[in-house]
Amino acid sequence: MHDPKPIVVLGSTGSIGRQTLDVVQALPDRLRVVGLAAGANLELFAAQVTQWQPEIAALANDQAAQRLREMLPSTRTRIVSGPEGVLEVATWPGCKLVVGAMGKAAGLKPTLAAIEAGKDVAIANKETLVAAGEIVMAAARARGVQLLPVDSEHSAIAQCLAGEPAGSVAGLTITASGGPFVSLSREEIAAAPAHRALKHPTWSMGQKITIDSATLMNKVLECIEARWLFDVPMEQIDVVVHRQSIVHSLVTFHDRSVKAQLGVPDMRLPIQWALLHPERVEGAAPPLNIASMGPLTFEAPDTQRFPSLLFARQVMELGGTAPAIMNAANEEAVHSYLQGGIGFYGITDCITTVLERIPPVARPTLEDITAADNLARQYTREWCNQHN
Amino acid sequence: MHDPKPIVVLGSTGSIGRQTLDVVQALPDRLRVVGLAAGANLELFAAQVTQWQPEIAALANDQAAQRLREMLPSTRTRIVSGPEGVLEVATWPGCKLVVGAMGKAAGLKPTLAAIEAGKDVAIANKETLVAAGEIVMAAARARGVQLLPVDSEHSAIAQCLAGEPAGSVAGLTITASGGPFVSLSREEIAAAPAHRALKHPTWSMGQKITIDSATLMNKVLECIEARWLFDVPMEQIDVVVHRQSIVHSLVTFHDRSVKAQLGVPDMRLPIQWALLHPERVEGAAPPLNIASMGPLTFEAPDTQRFPSLLFARQVMELGGTAPAIMNAANEEAVHSYLQGGIGFYGITDCITTVLERIPPVARPTLEDITAADNLARQYTREWCNQHN
Repeated sequence: MHDPKPIVVLGSTGSIGRQTLDVVQALPDRLRVVGLAAGANLELFAAQVTQWQPEIAALANDQAAQRLREMLPSTRTRIVSGPEGVLEVATWPGCKLVVGAMGKAAGLKPTLAAIEAGKDVAIANKETLVAAGEIVMAAARARGVQLLPVDSEHSAIAQCLAGEPAGSVAGLTITASGGPFVSLSREEIAAAPAHRALKHPTWSMGQKITIDSATLMNKVLECIEARWLFDVPMEQIDVVVHRQSIVHSLVTFHDRSVKAQLGVPDMRLPIQWALLHPERVEGAAPPLNIASMGPLTFEAPDTQRFPSLLFARQVMELGGTAPAIMNAANEEAVHSYLQGGIGFYGITDCITTVLERIPPVARPTLEDITAADNLARQYTREWCNQHN
Repeated sequence: MHDPKPIVVLGSTGSIGRQTLDVVQALPDRLRVVGLAAGANLELFAAQVTQWQPEIAALANDQAAQRLREMLPSTRTRIVSGPEGVLEVATWPGCKLVVGAMGKAAGLKPTLAAIEAGKDVAIANKETLVAAGEIVMAAARARGVQLLPVDSEHSAIAQCLAGEPAGSVAGLTITASGGPFVSLSREEIAAAPAHRALKHPTWSMGQKITIDSATLMNKVLECIEARWLFDVPMEQIDVVVHRQSIVHSLVTFHDRSVKAQLGVPDMRLPIQWALLHPERVEGAAPPLNIASMGPLTFEAPDTQRFPSLLFARQVMELGGTAPAIMNAANEEAVHSYLQGGIGFYGITDCITTVLERIPPVARPTLEDITAADNLARQYTREWCNQHN
């Protein structure tokens, strides 16, 4: 029996962060929370700090951090704040593994700092690898740390690749539930209001990621993430619509054998896999009943109704900062869609325009990526205002 | 690049043997045939010896071997005969891996001899492990040789277990096509003649194994084989009916994650896996198109219509020679059914009676197993004559 593994959760008040704490709660002999960080959700974060009594806790928002100190006057947890505070949590000396679940582009710098500090990272933030995949993978190789995917799709692929020799992979197939609009016509989708897109058929997730799942931008981000995590060229990565969300992804090998990972759609399973890898013990996830799971269906995705899918190969061909531009434009466009600003297909149209307007910088530094991100957001907001 | 791996094929004229040679033909840089053995199929065996020019070749039938020498007067292949000849091929010094595809109980002694000679064995003969699992596994452990399953189901399980730590398995799920009678009522099955049972929906195989697939005795043999190969107790091994024969089996881990192996129903894929393990290269098997493979269905098997299934746990509880008795009784009863002797459910009834009549010997030697096999065959023939 080992001592519990000391972990840090960046983004502890988000959907993945909360489910990570569920997994820790189910496995107190295996895992111990030594650090927490979040944005500005003060009430929940205060409750988490009280429950978990981490050694350090950060709120990115300075005012919220100040209020937290007032709420918990006698806490033994060191409370820090701002981006520097989050970095301090991400690199906390007593921690072995960092869960990188800080939402959107905000996750990039803390994740990179954790890697550079020699921590294994459970990557739950797609945008980190999308925007800066080359930089992040190079840092992980240089420090010899493990990047463990938390996304159910990448977890499935990593599980299927276990024990297989390098160079044996012919292709990756990422499954997509198809999202809330999978059965609608293009006209119906075009007219759909945001609240309808927020009703996801199989997964319970945050708002931004649920819209990405309606546009299938989610899958674009996952394809790019997979390209970096598993070092497989984009031409060998496909998406298949699998409405039941039971097969989480598949790997095809050169000999035509295909391996798949299955499970109930419950994020606690891939989270636990990343936290305990390679160990497998009973945890928080419910079992899958194979004999009663019902028919499993697979269809090629429809790029007429879901044109976003075409971005995956396009931005990898453009290279450099193009994925970061796409990702920033998508975040801002989804924000506008959620506010009722632009229509559903406005998201794709806007990203297309922004990608045309900003030439990608090859072999970018982190500063190039930040600059591209900022510029893309600015252009996207302009576009959204014009098309409101 | 390695030299081609020198292999021996025991049972080269059978279905698995012929497909093994297909795989070798597709991968001449990787594999080389140095020995062949078969029973009595003279014409095909002569053609194989001519094509592959092995160093040694054996026919179990002495007369057939003599005719082979006459047919190939100038061959450089050493031609041997009888059970001793087969053993000489199975232990041929220049060979690294033996494909054990000799049908039914005849495969046991050569397979064991190959293991004791330190050869890796691609096990394509279910009955070897069913009759003598404890002895065969102990011999393999003692010699440190690999037993590589060729059955598609066990190949799937072995592929899913790759890279997973010991003790992580919660259960194995063996898939069954359901066989030719999967959609018939018990009355229709009872009345079905043998030629109807021989029409298998998804796999092209030998006669005996096709009847086993109609009774689901096939799955009983596979459950027992899996119990030994993977050291998983029978209570953790289940069968699920999966009519499409695309998912070849599944493994459930303690964390509730499930891994599955998929592929077109083509034995050349698991054969190649066993021959080249752990390497994966393009070979003779056709690709699986995931987006168009159609719905995959899974159902609990019906032990009312397929009562044979209950033998798996029964004989493992009885232990000792009970699986060998069941296996021998099944071989003889299937033979009688194929000859039009007994009816379909006569196979199950007969095995039940024979298991009741012969008390199992615990911790049996090979001689105990042979004696039990012989006695079971004698009782089975008697039963079949009485119920003709």
